[in-house]
Amino acid sequence: MKGLWLERGQISLRSDLAEPRPEPGEALVEVVLAGVCGTDLALLEGYAGFAGIPGHEFVGRIAECAGKPRLVGRRVVGEINVACRQCAECRAGHSNHCRRRRVLGIRDRGGSFAEFLVLPLSNLHEVTDSISDRAAVFTEPLAAALRIGEQIGGLESRRVLIVGAGRLGQLVARALAASGCKPRILVKYPRQAELLEAFAEVSFAASELQARSFDLVIEVTGCPSGFQVALEAVRPRGTIVLKSTYRELTETDLSRVVVDEIRLVGSRCGPFPQALTLLERGLDVEPLIEAVLPLDDALGALEAARRPGAMKILLQISSSRKNHPM
Amino acid sequence: MKGLWLERGQISLRSDLAEPRPEPGEALVEVVLAGVCGTDLALLEGYAGFAGIPGHEFVGRIAECAGKPRLVGRRVVGEINVACRQCAECRAGHSNHCRRRRVLGIRDRGGSFAEFLVLPLSNLHEVTDSISDRAAVFTEPLAAALRIGEQIGGLESRRVLIVGAGRLGQLVARALAASGCKPRILVKYPRQAELLEAFAEVSFAASELQARSFDLVIEVTGCPSGFQVALEAVRPRGTIVLKSTYRELTETDLSRVVVDEIRLVGSRCGPFPQALTLLERGLDVEPLIEAVLPLDDALGALEAARRPGAMKILLQISSSRKNHPM
Repeated sequence: MKGLWLERGQISLRSDLAEPRPEPGEALVEVVLAGVCGTDLALLEGYAGFAGIPGHEFVGRIAECAGKPRLVGRRVVGEINVACRQCAECRAGHSNHCRRRRVLGIRDRGGSFAEFLVLPLSNLHEVTDSISDRAAVFTEPLAAALRIGEQIGGLESRRVLIVGAGRLGQLVARALAASGCKPRILVKYPRQAELLEAFAEVSFAASELQARSFDLVIEVTGCPSGFQVALEAVRPRGTIVLKSTYRELTETDLSRVVVDEIRLVGSRCGPFPQALTLLERGLDVEPLIEAVLPLDDALGALEAARRPGAMKILLQISSSRKNHPM
Repeated sequence: MKGLWLERGQISLRSDLAEPRPEPGEALVEVVLAGVCGTDLALLEGYAGFAGIPGHEFVGRIAECAGKPRLVGRRVVGEINVACRQCAECRAGHSNHCRRRRVLGIRDRGGSFAEFLVLPLSNLHEVTDSISDRAAVFTEPLAAALRIGEQIGGLESRRVLIVGAGRLGQLVARALAASGCKPRILVKYPRQAELLEAFAEVSFAASELQARSFDLVIEVTGCPSGFQVALEAVRPRGTIVLKSTYRELTETDLSRVVVDEIRLVGSRCGPFPQALTLLERGLDVEPLIEAVLPLDDALGALEAARRPGAMKILLQISSSRKNHPM
C-alpha cells in the first residue's frame, strides 16, 4: 500500500508498504482523512525515536473485521493508545497509561499517513452521519483538549489563559468555551485571532498580560519559551497545564514553582465520546482547515504544517462513500 | 545588638546592628535558639537577593509588646510571612502568598540570627511548657513538612518516596509517619538512615528504587539532580511535591511530565498549630540536632551547616528562662 515511512530521521512516500494485518479483536481501517499534528513534526525531528508510518489523527472506514462483517463500511475515528489490558495501569482503569502500550503512529504501531491502519475494535468510535469527515478528523485532538476539563474542575469560574493559538490552542479555546469558560489566549498571527473571535479574548503580546494573575494557564505552544510565559502569567497557587511535548529539555525556574506553590499538570489524551458529542452539536472546527492535500503530496503536507502559523493540514487518503457527508 | 549581617554576598558577625523597633500590633522577640536551614545557605549564595539579618527558624521570648505587657516573657515561635492583609491573596485567605509580603530573614525583614527580631503578634504562637526550646525551634520546618499533607490528601494510602534525607527530609518523614504513612526515603549517609529507623524504609541508591512506581515523590534534596530522581521514580499520573528552592534553573524533561500526565506541586510554608501539636505529643526531633553553637560562632555554624550530610545546626542566642525546660 501507499504511505509515508519514517526511519532514522528520513521520511519518504512509498508505494510498497505492507498492508497491516488485524489480529483477533482488531479491525482493518481504510483511512479517509488524516490530520497533521505538532507531534508528527516532532517525530520527524527525532522525538520518541519512532520508526514506521507516522500519523495518529484520522477518520476512516472499517474495511475488514474478522467475525463481524456487519461492521464493514462503518465510519470510525480511533483512540491511539493500544493497551495490554494486563498491567497495573490497565487493571486500574488507566489504559491510556498502559506500561506496554503501543501508540498509533507514535510508538510500535503504524499510523494514519497510509491507505490502511489497524486498531482494536475497542479503540474505535463510530461517527454519526451528522458529522462530516472534515470535522470527524478533529476528534482526536479535540479529545486531547477536553482532557483538561477532566483533570481540572470548575473551569467556568476560573481566569484562564491559553498560551499559543496554533492547531491545538484553537481546539483548547473551543473546548473551554463549550464548558462555559471564556479564556484569554496569546496569539501570534492575525489569522489565529480571527478564528478565535467567538471563543476567547485575544492578546498579541505576553507583555499585555497581567503578571501572576491567571488561575489556570494552558501551555500549547510547543516551545519551551511558552512555558516561561505561562510561569510569568500564573498566579500564586495557580495551575499550569502542559500540553506540549518538547523535543528538548526545558530550563525551568523550579524555585518559582516552590515559592508560589504552583501546580504543573501534564495532559495528554482525552475522551472521544465527549469530543464526538461536541462535534455532533455543531462545534465549528472546519475553519481550522488550511489545506487538504492528496497522499501523493504528503511530503508537501508536512512542509505546509511546519510553516509558522499553519493551521490544520489534512491528507485526503481515500474518498468517503457517497452516503456520508464530506 | 549582635547578629549576622548579609550584604552583597558578604556575611559578617556584627555588634553594631540596630535593634528592630516593633510597629503597632508587633512584638519585639528576644531570640533564644535559631536554626540554620538550607534556604539560609542559598541566600548566602545569592538566592532571592536578600540583604539584612538572615534566619527564619527560631524560638524566643516576647521582650516588648506595646499595650500588652502581660505578653512579655511568653515563649513563642513565629510564622515567617508578614502579610499586608489588603491584597487579593490576603483577602482570599492566602496570606502566606501576600503579594507584598515581607518574609523573616528572607525578604525585606531582618531575621533570627541576631539577639532580637520583630514580628506581628498575629504571626506568633505560644509554646507550651511541655515542648523544649530544642524541639520548639523545629516548629517552622516541621510546619513546612506538614504542608504536604494539606496539599495532597490521603497520604496514608499512597506509596510515597522522599528524595533526600537531610534536615527537611527527616522532618518530612516524621510528618508522614504521623499521618499513618510509612514512606521510602533515599538517603546518602548512614547517619541519616539511623535517624529514620522508626519512620521510613531506607534506600541508599536511586538504582534500588523501582522506576515509575511511586504515587507520590517528595523532592527535598535541594539539588536539581534530586528532581531527576523524582521524575524517574514517579508513576504515570503520579505527583511530585517540590520542596527545594534551587538557586539555579533546572533542565527538565517536561515531555515526560506531559506524556505521563504527572503533577508537580510546589510546597512552601505550613501550619504552625499542627506542628506544635505534634511536638507536644512528643514527636522526637532533638536527635536531629548536630550542634548548638553560640552566636559568637555564627559563621562557624553556617560552615557546619554547609558540610555534606550535616543535620540541624542551632545558634544559642540568649539563654532560656529557668522555668522553661531546655
